[in-house]
Amino acid sequence: MNRPPTIEWKDEKVFMIDQTLLPGELKILEIADHRLIAEAIQSLTIRGAPAIGIAGAYGLVLAANQYGGNDIDEFTAQIQDAAKLLVSTRPTAVNLGWAIAKLLNKVKEKNDINEIRSLLLAEANSILEEDYISCRKMGRYGASLLPESATGLTHCNAGGLATGNYGTALGVIFSAVESGKNIKMYVDETRPLLQGARLTTWELQQADIDTILITDNMAGHVMANGNIDFVIVGADRIADNGDVANKIGTYSIAVLADYHKIPFYVAAPVSTIDFDTKTGDDIPIEERDPLEVTHGFGIPTAPDGTKVYSPAFDVTPNSLVTSIITDRGIFTAPYKSLRDKILD
Amino acid sequence: MNRPPTIEWKDEKVFMIDQTLLPGELKILEIADHRLIAEAIQSLTIRGAPAIGIAGAYGLVLAANQYGGNDIDEFTAQIQDAAKLLVSTRPTAVNLGWAIAKLLNKVKEKNDINEIRSLLLAEANSILEEDYISCRKMGRYGASLLPESATGLTHCNAGGLATGNYGTALGVIFSAVESGKNIKMYVDETRPLLQGARLTTWELQQADIDTILITDNMAGHVMANGNIDFVIVGADRIADNGDVANKIGTYSIAVLADYHKIPFYVAAPVSTIDFDTKTGDDIPIEERDPLEVTHGFGIPTAPDGTKVYSPAFDVTPNSLVTSIITDRGIFTAPYKSLRDKILD
Repeated sequence: MNRPPTIEWKDEKVFMIDQTLLPGELKILEIADHRLIAEAIQSLTIRGAPAIGIAGAYGLVLAANQYGGNDIDEFTAQIQDAAKLLVSTRPTAVNLGWAIAKLLNKVKEKNDINEIRSLLLAEANSILEEDYISCRKMGRYGASLLPESATGLTHCNAGGLATGNYGTALGVIFSAVESGKNIKMYVDETRPLLQGARLTTWELQQADIDTILITDNMAGHVMANGNIDFVIVGADRIADNGDVANKIGTYSIAVLADYHKIPFYVAAPVSTIDFDTKTGDDIPIEERDPLEVTHGFGIPTAPDGTKVYSPAFDVTPNSLVTSIITDRGIFTAPYKSLRDKILD
Repeated sequence: MNRPPTIEWKDEKVFMIDQTLLPGELKILEIADHRLIAEAIQSLTIRGAPAIGIAGAYGLVLAANQYGGNDIDEFTAQIQDAAKLLVSTRPTAVNLGWAIAKLLNKVKEKNDINEIRSLLLAEANSILEEDYISCRKMGRYGASLLPESATGLTHCNAGGLATGNYGTALGVIFSAVESGKNIKMYVDETRPLLQGARLTTWELQQADIDTILITDNMAGHVMANGNIDFVIVGADRIADNGDVANKIGTYSIAVLADYHKIPFYVAAPVSTIDFDTKTGDDIPIEERDPLEVTHGFGIPTAPDGTKVYSPAFDVTPNSLVTSIITDRGIFTAPYKSLRDKILD
């Protein structure tokens, strides 16, 4: 990879790429305050379920380091407050809550402030490292599903920018290409925030993968023309029954793939599966600011006073998901209970 | 209607709204040169199949008036050249070729330059007048299909701005509302050029119709939530077998409507039906400038060098079209041959 990491811990601070400026500008933010981490997650400066899990974890480390006193109760309260703030930034992605819970669990019943600080940092580092390993595993598992030569379609960005590195859905593509397969990709631009156009084409170009950008509404036409052999996307939360919450538009593509008999793959680490969420109906769907639709990039594109509905995600029912590619293997329908399949 | 006409003939010139500036600015262009009409059609300053038919007709009138000599052969040659130029601007919409052919037919075997000029103008005026009458008829026919209270979804702009006035798909909505029905509309923004966000929301707002703007990729999610009772769109060309070419993204919505068992209506005048085009496979699909996708908001939204596929239209097969609403009545599947149904 020829670019700085999506997110890293260095000199007691968090460094992350400001993804709102890509591809025009590659700017690295240096953050030492957990409230700015929360803001960065909220504003999509960093996005992608695994990446915001990592950001949340480091945010909690910052909160612990920001405490200046030596009262363990005050310290613990500050950490709990920071945890709540960080988890509240984005309600749909489960990795955020998962990562924060993992850190809090490590320091349960500990009483030494500095010990807690090092345990939190060690756990955050381990989440980042495990993310990389799990992306590589998913990549290899997923690549095994793809033909020697094929053209895929992806939506939004499930690449290295959405994770600590490598990527989930794009990790599968990178892995397939590394293993010698000939993969070409169509990329949905992904309105309103254009993560496909801005981030996915950028990552695929850097990896020298033949890439064609389309607007979201062209996907059906491209499928009808016989140009798509498979669809692959990431996930923000997967329910126990295999229903998948992912970037708005994913559901439409899944229906279109079904209609054209094209396999529809979801790649996500097990940490994205919320075993406690029974079905997709139980997944909260975040609504975003209407301005993201009516003022794409600051320029008004609709009349003043236009009412907007802007869900950030939709839910694809398990019946439309050919396979879920995880770091613990590939699961296929009927999913029934992923908890039973994975945790047993 | 509280706004200037989409297009009109006045003082020997064509006046048209510059639709590329809406909704930010309502600017009227004054055009006295047929080459500028061709440019206006090409640049989507005026768009919508019926509207560009009218624009093409007046363009030919201008070409006739622009001739300064008195040589009938030279005059005829200039008209033929102008006709070719005007028809070549946009290959998919059939109304353009239909209108030009109608004018040329009127002056066949005429030899008096001034007589030809008045015949051309009379025929262009009559196309504009007939457009208004046919939109009203379509509106009434189509309104009869809608329940007393319903929520629809439309794509792109098939309103007064896409015709001489009133509209095709939106004409149906206006007519239903005028007859006392309670209609609410979702509008796809319609990338890349956002005719839905810019033009359709503007027209519906002016008509006081409850309107919610969504990005194109939200349509499936909104349908899955049970919020859409019918889909209605216009058409750029309808083949004899009922296959419909319309703005890119229409096909995806038709598949989604089919999946959710939602009726999918197409509203278009008979002049949009190309009886000589047997099926949708025979309809040429215009490709647009990649910059419309990569620089859609005036600023770059994809990395330099990004490859783009940008068809302006797609074809929805007749099997997905519940009814075609025309100025000559409503046609429903199986369409077989629209020529046989309409011209017999």
